[in-house]
Amino acid sequence: MTMQVNFADRLLRAIDEKENLGIVGLDPDVRYIPQFIEDMALDKFHDGRYGNQFAAEAYALLEFNKRIIDAVADIVPAVKPQIAFYEIYKSEGIVAFDETIKYARSKGLIVIEDGKRNDIGNTAEKYSAGHLGRVPLLCRKGESRLEVPSFDLDGLTVNVFLGSDCAMPFVTDCLHYGKGIFCLDKTSNPSAGELQDLLVLDEESQTKTKLSERVAHLINKWGEGTDGIEGYRSVGAVVGATYAGDATNLRTIMPNNIFLVPGLYTQGGQPEDIPNFVNKSTDSRIHGRGAIVNSSREIIYAYRKPEWSLKHDEEEFAEASREKAIKMKKDLTAALRNAQKSRW
Amino acid sequence: MTMQVNFADRLLRAIDEKENLGIVGLDPDVRYIPQFIEDMALDKFHDGRYGNQFAAEAYALLEFNKRIIDAVADIVPAVKPQIAFYEIYKSEGIVAFDETIKYARSKGLIVIEDGKRNDIGNTAEKYSAGHLGRVPLLCRKGESRLEVPSFDLDGLTVNVFLGSDCAMPFVTDCLHYGKGIFCLDKTSNPSAGELQDLLVLDEESQTKTKLSERVAHLINKWGEGTDGIEGYRSVGAVVGATYAGDATNLRTIMPNNIFLVPGLYTQGGQPEDIPNFVNKSTDSRIHGRGAIVNSSREIIYAYRKPEWSLKHDEEEFAEASREKAIKMKKDLTAALRNAQKSRW
Repeated sequence: MTMQVNFADRLLRAIDEKENLGIVGLDPDVRYIPQFIEDMALDKFHDGRYGNQFAAEAYALLEFNKRIIDAVADIVPAVKPQIAFYEIYKSEGIVAFDETIKYARSKGLIVIEDGKRNDIGNTAEKYSAGHLGRVPLLCRKGESRLEVPSFDLDGLTVNVFLGSDCAMPFVTDCLHYGKGIFCLDKTSNPSAGELQDLLVLDEESQTKTKLSERVAHLINKWGEGTDGIEGYRSVGAVVGATYAGDATNLRTIMPNNIFLVPGLYTQGGQPEDIPNFVNKSTDSRIHGRGAIVNSSREIIYAYRKPEWSLKHDEEEFAEASREKAIKMKKDLTAALRNAQKSRW
Repeated sequence: MTMQVNFADRLLRAIDEKENLGIVGLDPDVRYIPQFIEDMALDKFHDGRYGNQFAAEAYALLEFNKRIIDAVADIVPAVKPQIAFYEIYKSEGIVAFDETIKYARSKGLIVIEDGKRNDIGNTAEKYSAGHLGRVPLLCRKGESRLEVPSFDLDGLTVNVFLGSDCAMPFVTDCLHYGKGIFCLDKTSNPSAGELQDLLVLDEESQTKTKLSERVAHLINKWGEGTDGIEGYRSVGAVVGATYAGDATNLRTIMPNNIFLVPGLYTQGGQPEDIPNFVNKSTDSRIHGRGAIVNSSREIIYAYRKPEWSLKHDEEEFAEASREKAIKMKKDLTAALRNAQKSRW
């Protein structure tokens, strides 16, 4: 096996290069993409509208994505396609997902799939093989079975409600193939706390901790051995921008795990909260680092905001996304600089 | 919208008709399917072996499934394809998944996808639209947007670590389209208890309950309003056959939720444990009912056991699956009958 560059190192270097920890979520929805792209796709696939094949829809999603990627590729270190938005159009949608990955990588971007995959051990192995690792091919009797990359993402989100059996197959592939995972810990949605904030009793010490803190200790443990030379691990955690109050404590439990922070802007997370999600440390390698912050709808649908749409043609929609991505970068940079001045 | 028959009613009637609560998991793996199917697929797709297209692999999975489905369709009420085994072969794999669904339904089987999908509200809506409900198509300006079925499964497993925001979009589609979901509660894997068995403190009453019991109360609540006329709801729970000790208590918390019970045989669950998973009640509609029990590997790879392979040709592999499915039916029927005699 060839030596792979550690995922955490790759991601941190991309963040340094772009001087930006903001990333863009590629969650395209035919209901919100520009009309001219709908028309382009309908013109191209005359049967797309009434058939049960989704080639036209898939084409439209990919066209939309390519223009967004072109517009933000020099600004952000990574993109995060959410596979739900593609797989709902079955095989054609998966082609659009796969082509989106390839296009983004061809532009030098790290691609993190938001798939929240999870299952028992032998099935988690399958998910990991398909999304991060290698999948087995057919073979003739007596031949040795080849394994080849499939989606070959850089990173993947994983839901770890099933515990270590579910996490470890992904961790193994992180080590083998230079990949990364982000385990759901405290998600960005309003009902996240229903389970994740429950107070869990430690029978030995009779102390109480939040479930998300328990999960954080597991994530920290699972990441052991995935350390890069930049001070971070390839097993990270999803911690929602909407719960900055939890971030400081979770950061302490997981000092070397990179946080994927969803929920900026549209969901309510604010740039001013982001300093809670990065490390404050005397170790200069990890200080001020350790998080990527995602915004999806606010950026990809920026053209729909009246302040933009009243002044521009729909055909320039990607320019609105570019402006918003630059604004996100500025917002995050300013928030980190202010925190550095005042609190650290 | 046309009136849909309630999923719970459909499933219970199928169980009654087949007099069997055993179902078969369709988790095909090219490493374990018969050589003659590998050869068939390789002959058909000469480029399948070395290309990065997975048409040959997908063809082999589908051929394998069709023969299994033919062999068990008159025995079991439902099949449970686990999508991981298909999606790892990208768009071609998804075609095999989709064709498997259609083939199984054409044989009168209920199809429950094991996808363990989960996300925040607006993305959970997408997953639900694609797997259970209707997806939006492209449209011209001024036209009203059509929505059409996509995978159109009967049922889907859902991981509810994100809470109500994640569950409710699926519940809504259960109501609209006569579909069902099974929410992960106590999974069948060895590390299930790492989180699911944690003792959670109720701050008001200062009582302690397992996390899986808390989730059970939520599942029960989410199912309100999805009741069929047979006494059960379309929102069910996944409770592993390997944790029969938990089943009795969870059954009490969720009397009207159907349990999807994975993990029989290969994972260690025993038919004698299954009576714990069904209802004991004075209500004759629900008594002795309320569970479906899944076995995957033990059935689909039955032909690989020496006691069978030494006596038969590989080409008859599906016959081994048929025998095993009949054995599962007998095992489960006997276990329920014995429990009825001795304990109830």
